[in-house]
Amino acid sequence: MKIGFIGLGRMGQGMASRILGGGHDLSVYNRTAGKSAELAKAGAKVAATVAEVCTDRDLVISMVADDAALDAITLGAGGVREVLSKDAVYVSMGTHSAGAIQAVSAALKEKGQAFVAAPVLGRPDAAAAGQLVIVCAGPADAIRKCAPAFSVMGRKTMEAASAPEAAIAIKLANNFVLGCAIQTMAEGFSLVRKYGVNPQVFYDVITEGLFAAPAYKVYGKLIVDASYDKPGFTVKLGLKDIKLALAAGELVGVPLPSGSVVRDRLVGAIGHGDGDKDWAVLGKEQARACGLD
Amino acid sequence: MKIGFIGLGRMGQGMASRILGGGHDLSVYNRTAGKSAELAKAGAKVAATVAEVCTDRDLVISMVADDAALDAITLGAGGVREVLSKDAVYVSMGTHSAGAIQAVSAALKEKGQAFVAAPVLGRPDAAAAGQLVIVCAGPADAIRKCAPAFSVMGRKTMEAASAPEAAIAIKLANNFVLGCAIQTMAEGFSLVRKYGVNPQVFYDVITEGLFAAPAYKVYGKLIVDASYDKPGFTVKLGLKDIKLALAAGELVGVPLPSGSVVRDRLVGAIGHGDGDKDWAVLGKEQARACGLD
Amino acid sequence: MKIGFIGLGRMGQGMASRILGGGHDLSVYNRTAGKSAELAKAGAKVAATVAEVCTDRDLVISMVADDAALDAITLGAGGVREVLSKDAVYVSMGTHSAGAIQAVSAALKEKGQAFVAAPVLGRPDAAAAGQLVIVCAGPADAIRKCAPAFSVMGRKTMEAASAPEAAIAIKLANNFVLGCAIQTMAEGFSLVRKYGVNPQVFYDVITEGLFAAPAYKVYGKLIVDASYDKPGFTVKLGLKDIKLALAAGELVGVPLPSGSVVRDRLVGAIGHGDGDKDWAVLGKEQARACGLD
Amino acid sequence: MKIGFIGLGRMGQGMASRILGGGHDLSVYNRTAGKSAELAKAGAKVAATVAEVCTDRDLVISMVADDAALDAITLGAGGVREVLSKDAVYVSMGTHSAGAIQAVSAALKEKGQAFVAAPVLGRPDAAAAGQLVIVCAGPADAIRKCAPAFSVMGRKTMEAASAPEAAIAIKLANNFVLGCAIQTMAEGFSLVRKYGVNPQVFYDVITEGLFAAPAYKVYGKLIVDASYDKPGFTVKLGLKDIKLALAAGELVGVPLPSGSVVRDRLVGAIGHGDGDKDWAVLGKEQARACGLD
Repeated sequence: MKIGFIGLGRMGQGMASRILGGGHDLSVYNRTAGKSAELAKAGAKVAATVAEVCTDRDLVISMVADDAALDAITLGAGGVREVLSKDAVYVSMGTHSAGAIQAVSAALKEKGQAFVAAPVLGRPDAAAAGQLVIVCAGPADAIRKCAPAFSVMGRKTMEAASAPEAAIAIKLANNFVLGCAIQTMAEGFSLVRKYGVNPQVFYDVITEGLFAAPAYKVYGKLIVDASYDKPGFTVKLGLKDIKLALAAGELVGVPLPSGSVVRDRLVGAIGHGDGDKDWAVLGKEQARACGLD
Repeated sequence: MKIGFIGLGRMGQGMASRILGGGHDLSVYNRTAGKSAELAKAGAKVAATVAEVCTDRDLVISMVADDAALDAITLGAGGVREVLSKDAVYVSMGTHSAGAIQAVSAALKEKGQAFVAAPVLGRPDAAAAGQLVIVCAGPADAIRKCAPAFSVMGRKTMEAASAPEAAIAIKLANNFVLGCAIQTMAEGFSLVRKYGVNPQVFYDVITEGLFAAPAYKVYGKLIVDASYDKPGFTVKLGLKDIKLALAAGELVGVPLPSGSVVRDRLVGAIGHGDGDKDWAVLGKEQARACGLD
Repeated sequence: MKIGFIGLGRMGQGMASRILGGGHDLSVYNRTAGKSAELAKAGAKVAATVAEVCTDRDLVISMVADDAALDAITLGAGGVREVLSKDAVYVSMGTHSAGAIQAVSAALKEKGQAFVAAPVLGRPDAAAAGQLVIVCAGPADAIRKCAPAFSVMGRKTMEAASAPEAAIAIKLANNFVLGCAIQTMAEGFSLVRKYGVNPQVFYDVITEGLFAAPAYKVYGKLIVDASYDKPGFTVKLGLKDIKLALAAGELVGVPLPSGSVVRDRLVGAIGHGDGDKDWAVLGKEQARACGLD
Repeated sequence: MKIGFIGLGRMGQGMASRILGGGHDLSVYNRTAGKSAELAKAGAKVAATVAEVCTDRDLVISMVADDAALDAITLGAGGVREVLSKDAVYVSMGTHSAGAIQAVSAALKEKGQAFVAAPVLGRPDAAAAGQLVIVCAGPADAIRKCAPAFSVMGRKTMEAASAPEAAIAIKLANNFVLGCAIQTMAEGFSLVRKYGVNPQVFYDVITEGLFAAPAYKVYGKLIVDASYDKPGFTVKLGLKDIKLALAAGELVGVPLPSGSVVRDRLVGAIGHGDGDKDWAVLGKEQARACGLD
């Protein structure tokens, strides 16, 4: 399959690499040039523009950092909307706002172009290993055309609905549930600590029972160890994600009160100078709120 | 070991039964008489009063429904405080308020009596099968004396701290985290539904990844199925538990803002006439809050 | 009019004094005896028991501190329910829980006794000056009988509804709105302070415009001056009032999310050791939450 | 004084009119041309571009609708930054985000240009009557230069601080306190209604006492009358304002939990189809949340 790939950050590198390894004909593009070297060595063509990376492709995938970048490569001059063939499919795999995805979706539909949103769950190591979970939404036939690419990038593909922003809603809701789980644990830990409990005991109780899941094990451990200085995901990024979820809710009239609690605490963490720590530092922020620490 | 057991509700029956099956010499007491029949048949002595069930025992266990009952059997006339021998240990295994446990603890300590709080995680079927998780707190030597009883009632015993109310804090925090998880899922489901997502897909995404744990699987399923009419645990009981957690926080100066969100939604559910439904009905209450349903 | 008065705290003293000054035949009772001396000197009879203070009276008024005291004087042995004549009216003027007032109401109705709840707005100085605002609820004819007493105690009487607990709901809602106003100002002050604004300027802006009212002027001033050490009303009392409002909401299925925010912050203030400060210390608690102070 | 004025919406018309009436030499500019006719008749020059309206002026004032418009007239091609003389002062009087004002402030400072932010309190009728309250912040000498213009537009000028965004913080905090007051009243009304109280009685109690202020009188009346269909200020505009306050808080690490409650309820109102009603409809949204209405 002829595939174009836009956006060679840490996630994109791994994903493009998997596509190449899967035997596909790959052309890559990145705004700043240096990132393509390794993929070029492995056989990828390097395009100089978005227009070029879209030329003569069955599938064009983007994995870019934010809405501004998405907007530029899709709706900007020389962007996907101007150059994508009607037989091809464009797939956005980054985490964007529901509003941005709706805008791209509407603009491409107007030109009869096929668009799929397919945000992923998983970190760079999962991307490099082809172990992502891919949540996709869009026209059924367009999704079908993506299958050969999805199958080499992910260990599982889940189909959400026919409107591309539906996939975004799932991705954002998933991250939102995670933020709430961290905040909730933070509250639980502060409560038991005030009663003289060793946090490790509370950790053991919850993670061996109702909450025997990665979210609680990974983030609970960070809170028990007060290990906030080597961020896997910072407070600022966490706040960005929670705000995307709140904004997605706002767009369709859905209040998310638990999300507002998380938002407020993340803002407080920034106020206390912890904006660049791991967002598990919600544990410390909650401790502060009750005079611990 | 000579053990007295007070409170033969659905949990207490199973627990007492396990003790008997473990070869201990068991005497039981229940406020209303009928409940003792089966245990008597299996070899338990039936005491007519709290005083009698405490007589000549190494260990006296209570599993009673609320603070009022706890107060009556411990600090009331003819209660544990009046009759327990100094060599014996009294263990409260019900879910009570931190304040009530503190009061019992102080009153018994004054008389030199040994007191352990040991609330349990698990439902009646786990109690009957000896598969409870027991969270205990109290003086180390008193806890040691409980071991033979704990080992037949539970699959695991976790020691929290030396103050009995610490075990209560853990139990309440565990239930609190559960209530928050349900509310959080409810918010997530309402968000994706408004974007046209089949709730089952969101369920699959979260429970196969970060949230692959019983709390999410069990309650997520109930929300997906809108199955609220055969309550495993009602809104009113959930509210009672969340309020116990909030009160425990209040006692030691710990705000629990996520818990307040859950409390508010449970109160709203009561306002909408759903007080006797399963507390997974938070899914419906959240849907109401955004104009779904 | 023959009036009995129970409860001679700071509020009760002033109110009873006004009744006496209004030319009524007054009999007073207080649990601890010393409080009656001054009123006795001014011409009041001093009763030794609740039963005695109820004997041969047209109207019996109570102004007691909490639900436990209300319960004791009404439903306890020798209490109002046992002794009040059917021609007389009993009026509770303290701030109690909606639940307690409902219980008294039901118990007295069963015996055909007339009951009015009439909580007051105003502090001891207003009570002494007969300047209270009285919010009353109960059967219309019973309220009519109270008029001669109300008119000497208050500057205004407002009739809520026929169920006595309705008056309580108004009183609690009024205090609840006050707590929320303080918290809201606290948030506003913290925001402008972080932008380098002198709090006095923000105070001037709001109190000369939309918020030119005592609640904002009095409590805004305390926050501007960070004057929390001479409490007019402590954090602990404020928390008690907010909890009464939340409980009143719970009883009828009304979530009060803004009240939950106030509750959480008051609990946090206790956690930070400010439980005995004026509840305007919410200003400091909010400042703490954003790294000011 | 030679004054340029940008933005002739309902507020701008009144303000520019007052300036003209005050005897100043006025040049006006509006993106869409028709709006200038009346002012031209009254003696104002009509400029065709931002550059032209800035030429040879002592003072340039803008009153534009949103951040995008502010950005265009200040930092865009031919904007204030490119054309304003170093002796002149530029004053932004609209309600903008703290971030946008910071950006303009930084960009103009770089070029040695004087910048003042001076948002106003008051509606179009107050603007037309010169009765606005002006909250200003910026360099002291620049503010001094604005005095002749401020004195004809407003009845009062309040100086916040030296950083322009400080004035914005005050304006946003004022609107934020208003939103919270409406929500709080909404909660109070729902509570008393469930106890059978006529809302008018609760209105009378609060507005004759602690809350005898325009915010409570105006919005309380709308809630009592359930009069939401002739919006003075819509849910959507209210949400925009609350979000500006939350964003201003976020920028400096200030959580505003009461604001989050208001935000969530406004989003819920949108979910229930009330986005274009007066934001007093929070009264209805809260009633919905407890099964009233």
